[in-house]
Amino acid sequence: MASPEKARVPPAVQTPIPPITKFKIGLCQLKVSADKEKNILHARTAVEEAAEKGAKLVVLPEIWNSPYSNDSFPVYAEDIDAGFDASPSTAMLSEIARRLNITIIGGSIPERSGDKLYNTCCVFGPDGKLKAKHRKIHLFDIDIPGKITFKESMTLTAGETPTTVDTEVGRIGIGICYDIRFQELAMLYAARGAQLICYPGAFNMTTGPLHWELLQKSRAVDNQLYVATCSPARDAAAGYVAWGHSTLVGPFGEILATTEHDEAILISEIDYSQIELRRTNLPLEKQRRGDLYRLVDVQRLDSE
Amino acid sequence: MASPEKARVPPAVQTPIPPITKFKIGLCQLKVSADKEKNILHARTAVEEAAEKGAKLVVLPEIWNSPYSNDSFPVYAEDIDAGFDASPSTAMLSEIARRLNITIIGGSIPERSGDKLYNTCCVFGPDGKLKAKHRKIHLFDIDIPGKITFKESMTLTAGETPTTVDTEVGRIGIGICYDIRFQELAMLYAARGAQLICYPGAFNMTTGPLHWELLQKSRAVDNQLYVATCSPARDAAAGYVAWGHSTLVGPFGEILATTEHDEAILISEIDYSQIELRRTNLPLEKQRRGDLYRLVDVQRLDSE
Repeated sequence: MASPEKARVPPAVQTPIPPITKFKIGLCQLKVSADKEKNILHARTAVEEAAEKGAKLVVLPEIWNSPYSNDSFPVYAEDIDAGFDASPSTAMLSEIARRLNITIIGGSIPERSGDKLYNTCCVFGPDGKLKAKHRKIHLFDIDIPGKITFKESMTLTAGETPTTVDTEVGRIGIGICYDIRFQELAMLYAARGAQLICYPGAFNMTTGPLHWELLQKSRAVDNQLYVATCSPARDAAAGYVAWGHSTLVGPFGEILATTEHDEAILISEIDYSQIELRRTNLPLEKQRRGDLYRLVDVQRLDSE
Repeated sequence: MASPEKARVPPAVQTPIPPITKFKIGLCQLKVSADKEKNILHARTAVEEAAEKGAKLVVLPEIWNSPYSNDSFPVYAEDIDAGFDASPSTAMLSEIARRLNITIIGGSIPERSGDKLYNTCCVFGPDGKLKAKHRKIHLFDIDIPGKITFKESMTLTAGETPTTVDTEVGRIGIGICYDIRFQELAMLYAARGAQLICYPGAFNMTTGPLHWELLQKSRAVDNQLYVATCSPARDAAAGYVAWGHSTLVGPFGEILATTEHDEAILISEIDYSQIELRRTNLPLEKQRRGDLYRLVDVQRLDSE
């Protein structure tokens, strides 16, 4: 009668067991400058350092190759689909993923596609191949007068597809920054079997202290999975001042690694057996009331 | 194309403007003993004190007339539908709501209905009438070995209906304790136009420090409404030791009032104009992606 399986439409899928279930993750909280070439070299060095410290999965920040501003997005944008010659930022990620034999959640960069711009995260596997591309679904349009006003929609177009990707280190859902505010996306990723959700994100000095940690912990606890975030380091002189505080949260809401706002490379461990443990402790999936509420994953439903 | 209105099925309703939009709320974190008559007198005194301090809305804890245990529930249960002669606990709430001209969210008591038992919250208006009855929808069945194991389902039956109630102090959604873990219920209440969700709840010494505040803040921030919780005071000698920490959270996740674990009557102010403000700052409702995900309120859909 309670029909927990009906609480997700289509029903939630079993999380697959990936080749690697226990591994180190590296979160690279990078300084970002106005010099794209320098940003690319700097990111490369950070990924190398994370891999040297044992990370099999490395995450970069939101908009790591460009200043975060509507003026910069068109100038720094790259045509990712046109291949690596047209996209030095993703070319570097591909090369280094292959060379270091790691998976990279490539933060995000401004992407040009035809006459549109997107805020886009690319995922590369240890073979150097582009495994997934997530275009930020929820554009950051907020207005807190006297504190922070920003309208990404002035230059950017919203993505049309939620993204989960099977990697050797698990099924990973991708969100970019403001995507984290929409609990539905995390619920949908959990129902698709994600073990980890990565949110590259640059919260600011107003919403950062209020909500950044809260949102990460609640997505992790409500969905009983890992959540990793990666922010740019803070540059107090920048037009948009990032909060920093990149973090890894476990499936019980426990903070496994975090940092302040300076540049940092965080290394921490993910162990997917913790997900199973917490889902046994609190069997939320079996307790949901599909007779009362249902979350529909529209694209997954349409594809059936 | 993004179709934010489709993100809730049926579409979210406009929150109605209640007669009173700014008022004091009282949260009565009460000691609970094994003596039901004493518990009723004690609760009455606390509600009186809260009203004297200006509260127009008073909230009581989960299971305030009985020890919290599967042994006690059948013994202390009352047949609420049989009228006040059969239910001294709700008789008191009705009488005092009318006498003090306030609205009471009556925490919860064990309810007997035929051969079933429920964990039930009664809401009384200033006319002393029972305005709503919420039976806990998600029973508390958890197992964290060596920490906390409890199975409400050994004695209790789960409720069949989400509850929103229009009062003179706003449209209020009701959840009881473990109901707060299910984000869908809060989303559904927000879509029904609730301005405040009240969760009488007795978290414990394991899940309390881990998740109690987190869950309240995330329900408030994600749904941009007020959340009030009310716990019993801690009795370290009891079979089930409550965490306490009754709290009022505003629509930006801000803690407006909270306390430790001792007996306390918290008085704080609710101002619904804050909801409008935060929904203007962060217009989440207009940014949801109904083309990608939809939350279905099954009973509201069926009743259309």
